[in-house]
Amino acid sequence: MPTLLLDRNAVSDLLDMAEVIRAVEEAFIAWAEGKASMPPKSYLVVGKGDFRAMPAALPGAAGVKWVNVHTQNPARGLPTVIGILILSDPETAYPLAVMDATEITAYRTAAASAIASKFLARRDSRTLGIIGAGKQARYQILAQAEVFDIRQINVFDRSQTAVETLIDSLPDFTVRACSAEQAAASDIVCTLTTSRTPVVMRAWVAPGTHINAVGADAAGKQELEPAILKDAMVVVDDLRQASAAGEINVPVTAGLYSADDVYASLGEIITGRKPGRTDDSVITVFDSTGVAIEDVAVARIIYEKARATGGYPTMDLV
Amino acid sequence: MPTLLLDRNAVSDLLDMAEVIRAVEEAFIAWAEGKASMPPKSYLVVGKGDFRAMPAALPGAAGVKWVNVHTQNPARGLPTVIGILILSDPETAYPLAVMDATEITAYRTAAASAIASKFLARRDSRTLGIIGAGKQARYQILAQAEVFDIRQINVFDRSQTAVETLIDSLPDFTVRACSAEQAAASDIVCTLTTSRTPVVMRAWVAPGTHINAVGADAAGKQELEPAILKDAMVVVDDLRQASAAGEINVPVTAGLYSADDVYASLGEIITGRKPGRTDDSVITVFDSTGVAIEDVAVARIIYEKARATGGYPTMDLV
Repeated sequence: MPTLLLDRNAVSDLLDMAEVIRAVEEAFIAWAEGKASMPPKSYLVVGKGDFRAMPAALPGAAGVKWVNVHTQNPARGLPTVIGILILSDPETAYPLAVMDATEITAYRTAAASAIASKFLARRDSRTLGIIGAGKQARYQILAQAEVFDIRQINVFDRSQTAVETLIDSLPDFTVRACSAEQAAASDIVCTLTTSRTPVVMRAWVAPGTHINAVGADAAGKQELEPAILKDAMVVVDDLRQASAAGEINVPVTAGLYSADDVYASLGEIITGRKPGRTDDSVITVFDSTGVAIEDVAVARIIYEKARATGGYPTMDLV
Repeated sequence: MPTLLLDRNAVSDLLDMAEVIRAVEEAFIAWAEGKASMPPKSYLVVGKGDFRAMPAALPGAAGVKWVNVHTQNPARGLPTVIGILILSDPETAYPLAVMDATEITAYRTAAASAIASKFLARRDSRTLGIIGAGKQARYQILAQAEVFDIRQINVFDRSQTAVETLIDSLPDFTVRACSAEQAAASDIVCTLTTSRTPVVMRAWVAPGTHINAVGADAAGKQELEPAILKDAMVVVDDLRQASAAGEINVPVTAGLYSADDVYASLGEIITGRKPGRTDDSVITVFDSTGVAIEDVAVARIIYEKARATGGYPTMDLV
């Protein structure tokens, strides 16, 4: 059984947001139940950006994602983020597939936010605020729409072009450009910037808001005024990664917030070990750093669908 | 420029021990000079074995090796160790190649021992002891023979078949089967077992011996009686990895040896920051855990040779 080789188009064709949400949720459950193995991701800083090695093992699937952030790439006609994933059989370590993981990263990141919203946002949430209209924005909207009946989407970005491109890419949704403050006044807010200073202020956030803080994924990055965290029920995907590289990292380093103040992990919430939202007036924040179990879980689906479909290239690599 | 796909045969054909030794030595120099980035390898334990994710960045090359140890694989007709490496351009993160890394692992491990011997063994070393006649033994012999005029090779393994297979594979060398004690009486000794208890005793080791302790590569593994370490000048490839998973890990955990007693890293020795052997009577030990810079450095050569040669399969993966 040779190794499947799945390029970007193949992976894109096989991805389905509802399936990804289900797989990511199952991965968090497996992890919470001690059935997964996942060290924190490793960062390698190089001159023009950084690389991250993200290994994880789940029941039935193991793998490593190798992904980067090179912000000068677009000027060279290359994407900022390029991901590749090796999926292995945990029983034998045989490489089942090598696949593009750029689109997987986009889907699973959005899926994690949707799962967090399902457990943490108010059930009657109808408006979605998007702060940062880069590529991830569209995926976040599609994922949130899988779990909520979103009627209105309020988008802010410093770049008017980015906002217009996003609106044009979503003809089936009611999307309007607005200020950051207006976007933050939505029922569910997704922050998707690369900011190193707060882009959402405490005063803008109404009681009962749920925020998916997605942008901060490396030391020094932050999107929320720390007072929001102080007043919120904070849920993380991985406390080790969040403390070092997630939304809470800058306030923790500055002594403005303690990792001990984090309410729960997403796995604890999904498995019911700790309740999600129980009060319509509390502010909830999901600090999403992105974890390798998400990638491996999605890669496993892609692999299984590709095998079932057939016709993809293979190679006796090892 | 699509991604090169290099299978096991392609990589094997392109590997050359003298080139590998040179590349690995240059990688250690770059690392000692602060020009490399390498977090410790991450371990993932699964039911039937473990996986290791090994990322590193060097000038001109970045990558991650994904490798495992599954000891029940041979019964299923698969190798115990299967490695795959993704090589990326550090400037853009574009994946230059995906290649089998099983043979790379074998070559670079042997090369590191040869480099250690070059700086730590007595210049007049002529006999080589091999303890553990598995697949790595042949590579270690070929590598040591690149840097020393080896006249006699003394091999011990619990399996007589393994010893005979090794001898048959090396018609150009004078190799004899012997006891562990006799093998340990050689000028240069390479320990290549998966043992969790000492296989070389202090009393067997003569003054002036150099030992490449290669087998211990995970917590709980050890090959040398701790008294050897106490009496020796110990050099490590990576102090963090050695303390957690190398030859010193068991004695350190047991309080029989301190990581502070390690004399130097291999990079410090190669760059001359600390002298190698200066006294013919001292015992030297190289605690080799295997570091990702070795793999990335070798993968880079393979990639460059494959590009220069041409004719290898490629794919627009990302």
